[in-house]
Amino acid sequence: MSDLPRSIEIHEEGPREGFQLEPVGIPTTEKVRLIEALAEAGLRYIACTSFVDPQRVPQMADALEIAHGVRRRPGIRYTGMWLNEKGFDRALASTLDLAPNVVASASNEFSIRNNNCDASALLARQARLLDRYAQAGLDLEAAHVFTAFGCYFEGDIPAETCLGRLEALLRLCAEHGTSPKTVYLCDTIGAANPEQVRRLLGAVRERWPEQALGLHLHDTRGMGLANALAGLQMGVRVFDSSCGGMGGCPFAGHRSASGNISTEDFALMCEEMGIETGLDVDVLIECAKLAEEIVGRPLPGRAMRAGRVPHA
Amino acid sequence: MSDLPRSIEIHEEGPREGFQLEPVGIPTTEKVRLIEALAEAGLRYIACTSFVDPQRVPQMADALEIAHGVRRRPGIRYTGMWLNEKGFDRALASTLDLAPNVVASASNEFSIRNNNCDASALLARQARLLDRYAQAGLDLEAAHVFTAFGCYFEGDIPAETCLGRLEALLRLCAEHGTSPKTVYLCDTIGAANPEQVRRLLGAVRERWPEQALGLHLHDTRGMGLANALAGLQMGVRVFDSSCGGMGGCPFAGHRSASGNISTEDFALMCEEMGIETGLDVDVLIECAKLAEEIVGRPLPGRAMRAGRVPHA
Repeated sequence: MSDLPRSIEIHEEGPREGFQLEPVGIPTTEKVRLIEALAEAGLRYIACTSFVDPQRVPQMADALEIAHGVRRRPGIRYTGMWLNEKGFDRALASTLDLAPNVVASASNEFSIRNNNCDASALLARQARLLDRYAQAGLDLEAAHVFTAFGCYFEGDIPAETCLGRLEALLRLCAEHGTSPKTVYLCDTIGAANPEQVRRLLGAVRERWPEQALGLHLHDTRGMGLANALAGLQMGVRVFDSSCGGMGGCPFAGHRSASGNISTEDFALMCEEMGIETGLDVDVLIECAKLAEEIVGRPLPGRAMRAGRVPHA
Repeated sequence: MSDLPRSIEIHEEGPREGFQLEPVGIPTTEKVRLIEALAEAGLRYIACTSFVDPQRVPQMADALEIAHGVRRRPGIRYTGMWLNEKGFDRALASTLDLAPNVVASASNEFSIRNNNCDASALLARQARLLDRYAQAGLDLEAAHVFTAFGCYFEGDIPAETCLGRLEALLRLCAEHGTSPKTVYLCDTIGAANPEQVRRLLGAVRERWPEQALGLHLHDTRGMGLANALAGLQMGVRVFDSSCGGMGGCPFAGHRSASGNISTEDFALMCEEMGIETGLDVDVLIECAKLAEEIVGRPLPGRAMRAGRVPHA
């Protein structure tokens, strides 16, 4: 464990990951209230919403209203996600910060369910997005590999499949004269175990030694923080997480929709391990309680119930 | 992570840890049913009940009936816990297997609340127990250090305090001509973080290089499996866990009573990491569902809801 980073960056995904799974009808003002509360915790990056098809994900129909409603604090990036050009157009027209990214899916079947196209059509779609980013004068930020650790449709995904999809995506970026600042390996449905995290990160690093890596982890099977620990030990310095552990992917096909690792639980673990996050865990715990109040049901985050161990 | 053990031993604590926290009134036959179901999963050690004061823990008043009721499978040790001579007398008179142990508490305040005496009186009580074990011709099996990673009353406990209490306990054992086969560091209330697990295990191993070590972890703050991973990486080969993650200590003083790491979640993680446990995770998942049915409320275990990731 001697390779633990001194400091890491935690990206808040709760408002985007979380509200997409809740029943329609959560008032936009409540979503905005949570985003503004999260901004008080020291987060530098908050994913506020998704610019996705309101027919498929009606919970995200208020994306523009959210973008408009948030009182912004300086120094924080308030972003929205998109999966295609249409979504990008909406994001471009919104007042949110833009974090241009490209995606691949290790699982072909997940791609079909989540992105409405197979893996090669998904790659072609990234080419069009890269063109649009260039036209808009925007730098590419991230590449995400969905279901990098397996999926409920295809089961285990060989590391070679995952590396192959990432290679094709990075080649496409290079052909467009760009490269992602960070490559995220996404455990989209929470299938990873710590050994797999270590091995896949090792394989990616071996092939692309200079590439900064991030982890997007779900806690479907309670291994979320163990997987995060394995990532920390491999020197990963960027992690997605979600307030209260809210969320889950509506197209993941698993029986127990589960959100990202909980922001406050992960931040607390890092703090206790001596890894700086810049986050105020007490404020995050209040945010998680607020999130529970808004969604009206218990969320999986633990620190908000257990509290801190008092320091003597 | 290269020091991962090839195989480990998981001790089931659910019936003991779990039922003590549930309201009085769970039929003894249901408790016995769970114990018998767990015996089908490959477990070799099942803590069935506690021989504690029925005035203080009325849930455990049926300890003798449980002992009597269980149809035993060969090769499995069905044990009960005791904290003092009176409890030991009851265990001795029962039909359960005996696992003679001694305990210390890193936190003095926890000792007062859990064991009704301060740390030095607790040590004196162990001397009397060691005498009794010798009279009964029983070998000492384990030493447990409660609250080794901190407690809600005293907060952080310096490693030196914990090592000091363990040293006193081991010295006492030596004076009685014996030593424990396994020393368990117990995160009684779930205060540990992975770095602390690594450091404390390292410090204990440095002082007693030949001593076999076990971990008793609670998942109060969601770090349970991350702490277990840290333990595995330090070569720990014996772990306590609890079916469905049921349980928690009634005298721990924390706001969110939380059980041990879940047996089925931990066994699944080990299996996926290539560490042998000898356990059948599918049977364990059925046990966790049965435990939920018996206690009549959702338990924290995750694998029973998420299911396995199918193998392609």
